[in-house]
Amino acid sequence: MQLHGKHIISGQPAPATETAPSFFAVNPADGAELQPAYREATHDEVNRAVREAADAQDSVAALSPELRGRLLREIAVGIEALGDTLIQRCMAETALPEARLTGERTRTVNQLRMFAALVEEGSWVEARIDRSQPNRKPAPKPDLRRMLMPLGPVAVFGASNFPLAFSVAGGDTASAIAAGNPVILKAHPCHPGTSELVGEVVTGAVKQLGLPPAILSMLHGAGHEVRKALVSHPSLQAVGFTGSERGGRALYNIAASRPAPIPVFAEMGSINPVFVLPGALRTHSNELVSGLTHSATLSVGQFCTQPGVVFVCDCPERERWLEEAGTAIKSQSCGVMLSAGIASAYAEAVSQIENTPGVEPTGAEPVPRERSEKRSTPPNESTAPAAGTVVCPQTFAADLETYLAAPALQNEAFGPVTVFVRVNSEAELLRAAESLEGQLTATIHADSDELTQHAALRAALTRTAGRIIYNGYPTGVEVCPSMHHGGPYPAATFPQFTSIGTAAVLRFARPVCFQNMPAEALPPELQDENPRGILRLVDGTPTREALSQID
Amino acid sequence: MQLHGKHIISGQPAPATETAPSFFAVNPADGAELQPAYREATHDEVNRAVREAADAQDSVAALSPELRGRLLREIAVGIEALGDTLIQRCMAETALPEARLTGERTRTVNQLRMFAALVEEGSWVEARIDRSQPNRKPAPKPDLRRMLMPLGPVAVFGASNFPLAFSVAGGDTASAIAAGNPVILKAHPCHPGTSELVGEVVTGAVKQLGLPPAILSMLHGAGHEVRKALVSHPSLQAVGFTGSERGGRALYNIAASRPAPIPVFAEMGSINPVFVLPGALRTHSNELVSGLTHSATLSVGQFCTQPGVVFVCDCPERERWLEEAGTAIKSQSCGVMLSAGIASAYAEAVSQIENTPGVEPTGAEPVPRERSEKRSTPPNESTAPAAGTVVCPQTFAADLETYLAAPALQNEAFGPVTVFVRVNSEAELLRAAESLEGQLTATIHADSDELTQHAALRAALTRTAGRIIYNGYPTGVEVCPSMHHGGPYPAATFPQFTSIGTAAVLRFARPVCFQNMPAEALPPELQDENPRGILRLVDGTPTREALSQID
Repeated sequence: MQLHGKHIISGQPAPATETAPSFFAVNPADGAELQPAYREATHDEVNRAVREAADAQDSVAALSPELRGRLLREIAVGIEALGDTLIQRCMAETALPEARLTGERTRTVNQLRMFAALVEEGSWVEARIDRSQPNRKPAPKPDLRRMLMPLGPVAVFGASNFPLAFSVAGGDTASAIAAGNPVILKAHPCHPGTSELVGEVVTGAVKQLGLPPAILSMLHGAGHEVRKALVSHPSLQAVGFTGSERGGRALYNIAASRPAPIPVFAEMGSINPVFVLPGALRTHSNELVSGLTHSATLSVGQFCTQPGVVFVCDCPERERWLEEAGTAIKSQSCGVMLSAGIASAYAEAVSQIENTPGVEPTGAEPVPRERSEKRSTPPNESTAPAAGTVVCPQTFAADLETYLAAPALQNEAFGPVTVFVRVNSEAELLRAAESLEGQLTATIHADSDELTQHAALRAALTRTAGRIIYNGYPTGVEVCPSMHHGGPYPAATFPQFTSIGTAAVLRFARPVCFQNMPAEALPPELQDENPRGILRLVDGTPTREALSQID
Repeated sequence: MQLHGKHIISGQPAPATETAPSFFAVNPADGAELQPAYREATHDEVNRAVREAADAQDSVAALSPELRGRLLREIAVGIEALGDTLIQRCMAETALPEARLTGERTRTVNQLRMFAALVEEGSWVEARIDRSQPNRKPAPKPDLRRMLMPLGPVAVFGASNFPLAFSVAGGDTASAIAAGNPVILKAHPCHPGTSELVGEVVTGAVKQLGLPPAILSMLHGAGHEVRKALVSHPSLQAVGFTGSERGGRALYNIAASRPAPIPVFAEMGSINPVFVLPGALRTHSNELVSGLTHSATLSVGQFCTQPGVVFVCDCPERERWLEEAGTAIKSQSCGVMLSAGIASAYAEAVSQIENTPGVEPTGAEPVPRERSEKRSTPPNESTAPAAGTVVCPQTFAADLETYLAAPALQNEAFGPVTVFVRVNSEAELLRAAESLEGQLTATIHADSDELTQHAALRAALTRTAGRIIYNGYPTGVEVCPSMHHGGPYPAATFPQFTSIGTAAVLRFARPVCFQNMPAEALPPELQDENPRGILRLVDGTPTREALSQID
């Protein structure tokens, strides 16, 4: 399949401006540039994409839930139909292994179908009806009906580490479209070809169903100008983003300084603390080593839920266990990161950690270290190979004072590094928990008596994290109604919203209330007969009945 | 009842710092200073209030829904028990008439009881459970349970125009406490005595029930320092505000520039456009005059839903109707505004409107104009009396080009002024709708055929406003589950949330997900047996059943 290297504006390939700076995807495994060239979207191209989305927003909002569902399902089918073409290009652009990408593809199409089912069922709009009371004193009560409606044009920024599941047709796009919004997708410059392939699938599905073409535009860019122009555009209504704290905060700051600020839903950094209590080492010490090793090193540690810090309680087994865990993590294959930039940021973060006074390496160095790239670079020259992208898992240990004094240990280091922190008392355990910034996840390993006893620890983590895991691991985020993938800043810019699971749709809709509106001017969801059969709150009581069936 | 003039920190009257600047409430009717003196809270006092709230947040969060409900109900009883003491002080501080304030008191205690009932029933926490599938391939599915939990310390800023319903024990405080958060209340400097009376009711109820005293602190201040210190405090988690766009944006900017930004839920300005189509003048011309007059001038126009602009379609009756409406509005009593500052801002806004080229007055001037204050000042010296607070209703007319060219006509002028704008075609009607910033409300007066035909107008208003009213008036906001009081910026800082109605509680809670957590470490709302009998989403299906009763 020939890639065209163009933007897509309102369903049409739009040749990039020839004077705009160009860039290529780079194969992280060998540093080779991949054809074709892509170019930075210009201000004019950004403006055109947003303006056309704004012009189309009413017709997109008016699409029936059935059509929105069909579109999402057609996109899923189209992604599957790309078959190996998609996987091969994506492997070349990301160095993620085939099994990981086919798995991510499954997740992506499942997400699309999940949001399709959500809008087809329809109750997600949280319809509420309070019937009129014309004879109420001192004043009559009007008829009030409220439901969630689309926001308008949404910008979605593709994520480097999920080239399918959080990119062109990923969770943000799927939930924004499910809610009835046009999307302007800023493709991640690490995988423009993958983005183009999926972008063409989306526009093909839109065309096939005869929907408004401006439902998706896709713009390329590797610099900061595109994001600034996009997020500043007065017609844009919201932003979805998954990535670094720095990147998310930059978008947040642009949006917050607009004359009319808009919400930026950024899922950002997290060190995903794990608390190991003595009972865990008594009851499942070995399983904890293997589970933690898997979670910390999977996909070269490139998950926002990678466990970056493990607080280990004082207990007789501790030093032996730290040695075992460190050795197990370090014995994992080195791997190619998503880009040279990400690898060098990892190397810098690791270097800051290991140069912090009081930090020592833990676990035995594997000799010779097996590298997935079969290069025999020494363990400490992790950025040495040609492409500068191969890194190895690292572990360190420190005491709590060292950890608390060193921002390098408390900030997310994106990649396969885990810092073990010794906590020597209940008071230190709580100090550790209290010190945390907002987290996507926090994990407790303990026996069940300990878990019950540590109410203060649980309370502190509940205050800090979006998800609390017991005797499990933070990676492997389920996509389902109960998932919450978010948390207090900097886990996310907005603690109320999730970027994974059905509730992600709520980011891209807002309530609208209709007062004394005749049936013919009401959306079907709010009409007396409840033609869509959704669950509604009528006079405060949940029901699927038509109004005529109530009272 | 003797007022103490102190702050309240964690349930205790805290003498103000003697070196801090002092201020008095001022009776807007005569300019007299009201005893006692209040003083600006110092940084130390702000820090202590937030720190003690943060220290208490786990115990506040752990209060059972029954206790939270009892607290809200006790506060309501206590406010009623203040009787005339409260109303008299409030009248002196606000110049709002007795009937208005007794009505607002009723609304306030009803709101408190509504949130009490909401938390007692309990389903507001949106509990979701996805049961484990240990045999799922390729990986087992964990048990996931999610519900809304408190945010932590919330700052609430009392509003000048609702000294009871959006002040110390108003909707923001009630919903924040209902959700399980401690509140630091910044009393509005226009009614510190009213605030103290209600603040003492809250702390008395907290004491009587033996609850954590830090559930409410109340700080005084008339300058910007208190708000800056409060919103900047690292332990603060959210802000609730009702007031001007300038005030709300200032809070938003402080919060957005924190190292860890927090949400500011500000309900701000709105001009609440009314669209009058020809059928309205045919079917209910007189009723429209009287309804609009009431809505535009009620409480001296000091409502965020006051209709500030009326777009009137081309039709034979238009000029006569404009004259009637203008005359009716101007014939209403002049009145005392909440403060000299608000009155002078109103005078300035009116002056900007009337000095805009192309704007003409509409309706006959009443001679002599009857003033509620019985002063015989000429109509155009509305700020002349001693206290500088008496203003009179004003109306103007303009064509659409004039309106679109003049920010003074498009911005909210807080007070009893309404601008009638002539729109002379369907195209102009749509241009008017498309030109609007975010609005709390938009109203259409039309016959039902016209309403149906104007789909584009309805779509444009649905995109712009939080509430769409048909053949009604924007003032008189119902407090119920279906109400949405918010909208795109600048109606509110966050289009997803309402500040009125049961959904207001959602501002002050966030989802937390528990993975594989044993029953004893789960909140009752998420336990298998569903001991609170709440509506939950179990494996995607809404139910009140215990898990053992399902499948």
